[in-house]
Amino acid sequence: MEPFDIVIINGFVLTMDPSENVFAPGYVATRGCDIAAVGRYDGGRFNAVRTIDADGGIILPGLINAHTHAPMTLFRGIADDRPLLEWLSKYIFPVEKRMDDSFVYAGARLACAEMILSGTTTFCDMYLFEQEVARAAKESGMRCLVGEVIYDFPSPSYGPAENGLKHTESLIKTWQDDPLVSVAVEPHSLFTCSPDLLKAALETALQYNVPLVTHVAETLAEVMEIRRRYGKGPVEHLSDLGLLGPNLIADHCVHLNDDDIKRIADAGARVVHNPESNMKLASGIAPVPAMLAAGITVGLGTDGCASNNNLDLVTEMDTAAKLHKVASMDPTVMNAVTVLSMATRGGAKALGMEDITGSLEKGKKADIIVVDTNRPHLTPMYNPYSHMVYAARGNDVSHSIINGRLVMENRRLLTIDVEQTIKEADKKADDVREWIGYYS
Amino acid sequence: MEPFDIVIINGFVLTMDPSENVFAPGYVATRGCDIAAVGRYDGGRFNAVRTIDADGGIILPGLINAHTHAPMTLFRGIADDRPLLEWLSKYIFPVEKRMDDSFVYAGARLACAEMILSGTTTFCDMYLFEQEVARAAKESGMRCLVGEVIYDFPSPSYGPAENGLKHTESLIKTWQDDPLVSVAVEPHSLFTCSPDLLKAALETALQYNVPLVTHVAETLAEVMEIRRRYGKGPVEHLSDLGLLGPNLIADHCVHLNDDDIKRIADAGARVVHNPESNMKLASGIAPVPAMLAAGITVGLGTDGCASNNNLDLVTEMDTAAKLHKVASMDPTVMNAVTVLSMATRGGAKALGMEDITGSLEKGKKADIIVVDTNRPHLTPMYNPYSHMVYAARGNDVSHSIINGRLVMENRRLLTIDVEQTIKEADKKADDVREWIGYYS
Repeated sequence: MEPFDIVIINGFVLTMDPSENVFAPGYVATRGCDIAAVGRYDGGRFNAVRTIDADGGIILPGLINAHTHAPMTLFRGIADDRPLLEWLSKYIFPVEKRMDDSFVYAGARLACAEMILSGTTTFCDMYLFEQEVARAAKESGMRCLVGEVIYDFPSPSYGPAENGLKHTESLIKTWQDDPLVSVAVEPHSLFTCSPDLLKAALETALQYNVPLVTHVAETLAEVMEIRRRYGKGPVEHLSDLGLLGPNLIADHCVHLNDDDIKRIADAGARVVHNPESNMKLASGIAPVPAMLAAGITVGLGTDGCASNNNLDLVTEMDTAAKLHKVASMDPTVMNAVTVLSMATRGGAKALGMEDITGSLEKGKKADIIVVDTNRPHLTPMYNPYSHMVYAARGNDVSHSIINGRLVMENRRLLTIDVEQTIKEADKKADDVREWIGYYS
Repeated sequence: MEPFDIVIINGFVLTMDPSENVFAPGYVATRGCDIAAVGRYDGGRFNAVRTIDADGGIILPGLINAHTHAPMTLFRGIADDRPLLEWLSKYIFPVEKRMDDSFVYAGARLACAEMILSGTTTFCDMYLFEQEVARAAKESGMRCLVGEVIYDFPSPSYGPAENGLKHTESLIKTWQDDPLVSVAVEPHSLFTCSPDLLKAALETALQYNVPLVTHVAETLAEVMEIRRRYGKGPVEHLSDLGLLGPNLIADHCVHLNDDDIKRIADAGARVVHNPESNMKLASGIAPVPAMLAAGITVGLGTDGCASNNNLDLVTEMDTAAKLHKVASMDPTVMNAVTVLSMATRGGAKALGMEDITGSLEKGKKADIIVVDTNRPHLTPMYNPYSHMVYAARGNDVSHSIINGRLVMENRRLLTIDVEQTIKEADKKADDVREWIGYYS
């Protein structure tokens, strides 16, 4: 008998491979970091170091949160329901001016705990002191694509603006060849980065063959500002600067016209959709069905906890599906399979990791989650895709394996001390209260 | 020392009373079925039969799911992402034709388990064989307002159409003076009930002084059909028939114009908003901010599991808040306090239970839940309202007390055998599969 490390048996296996193969019941087996076998489970025994019984639950690829600002967990609920400028100027900026690497580490560690507990195994992040996000992810055993946010003004992290790309280069070199952490070049947006900075960012990304991540057309105000400055919309501006290419990951893309969609599709650029953040900040509704119809790769993200206020990609799927149905007044758009694909295979493709993760296929890395369906709200089960999108919650995920390593077992985190992580986060929150005069 | 039955200490008490008093930290004490005291917790001891330590969590009134079709849990995920007519004709109607009281009981019991586990303590229901919903609710210890759905055609439950109101009267008499179950008159909708049936329903409701519950203006197709038949919109039709009064509970109210809103407000009729169902079926977005501004009482509901697909009112709050922000392109509308009010005090008022439940006030019935916030996704806590609406999930609720009785303790249901309930539901789902040829 072929020897395996971990074998998960007796569940509905949603492979999310390009043919959307399902094995019911099925099994998934790992060896080292890899998926060694996937198939129908006939009740037999395996030669495995460890066997996990999914007990009729759902076995699927780990979810991919394709846009986060992980350390912003420490801002969760600090200032909801306010106009964007007040929120930024009174709450976020005053804190970001005073934060340090230990703040970012505490917030990122908390984020990793929350993400693993809700089924995410890979995330793509943008923030300050990003080496601390990489460290927290690595320690927790999560897969990630991270990048230091760069813009035209000084950063609390790397100092003067001109240091931004050098700092990014050093991050890239530090994490080169790491099995879990990879690094992108991440200019913040078209309205906080000059054309020269954007072009320099592209050059760095091309030089090291890494993705370029930026916010694009998130708000109408942004679109109007770019038009005022450059006489064209954000996507055309990106295109004219040469940035609209296959290595671009464009977050949000809420305000696009037909020409923008065609340009993104033609360029092979990838998009990340963040419906809950776009709703909560009243940014708008991204034309996702049109983007998918145009053949654009779209991943799904939660954005940061300052604008969501959670990192639960399972409920984000639910919102994504329902939002686009009502926005298009058509209940057939964004069906459960489409949305689950965005959160798995689509997210992997959006991050350039389609050969590594996002589906359960032999030879890919073993990023696998198990959902416990023996619960009233997941009973009965006619259709596991439907359950994943419309009925499950992040905390229905019972087990998580990342890169072949069991990181959560029956909802117990094996790589993070949750009590200590919560304690540290609470301490940092006390700093935040002091800095902004909260409750004073 | 005043003797209490249960006292919950050491939490953020969100009373949701009309002044929105908060006690941090606070306590709530019960005696018999009632709330005996609410106030600031100073660390002292109480003379109580039982003390529950909320451990820094949130203590709030039990949530009120103001519109459900509880037994439709047995349809969860059977046919998503389809046009309404196909969904009804191929899946729902063929099953409803063959179901019986045991089917409804099994589905309602499953629904009660799911609702208690996600923080709901009171629900308002409409379905067939509704005496079984009342029985399941009563056994589980839940508070409810239920009613047999009546319409112009024969019912699998009570037979010929003309029996509908007699059947309702007998339900009303059966449950008269019950501390938990009350009964409403529930004509299905304006397009399935003739003007004569609607007027007779009103008479019955007035005779017994009970609420009148119906679906109103849920879809554009319905509005067009009512205009075609009667030359006026649904609200005007209701008004002209005399039904638009203070005992009316109008579910959905998606497609309203300014005149409709004024009519509803002037009549003192109440509305129940079901954002997730309206999104999933692509029905539209109800003008809730305008209704609230007009002074209309609006409760929050999940609708049935055939169109949601869950009964989690906590995530329904999240969706409600975010949906209306993006629909109005204004992040300040439907703030966390407003939305939590809709799910508690507002829901109680919508169901005519404002003297009984919906807030933590001395003299009201003891319907209380505790949310465990010692979890990564609820850390840190700057604002408990924000946490309830934007970060919590139904399964963060740890304890539930209804009418003074502890029905859930540390997520263990004390009134329902969950394993047995899931088993019975799975059996009924097998019947459904057979009836509609699912997987065949």
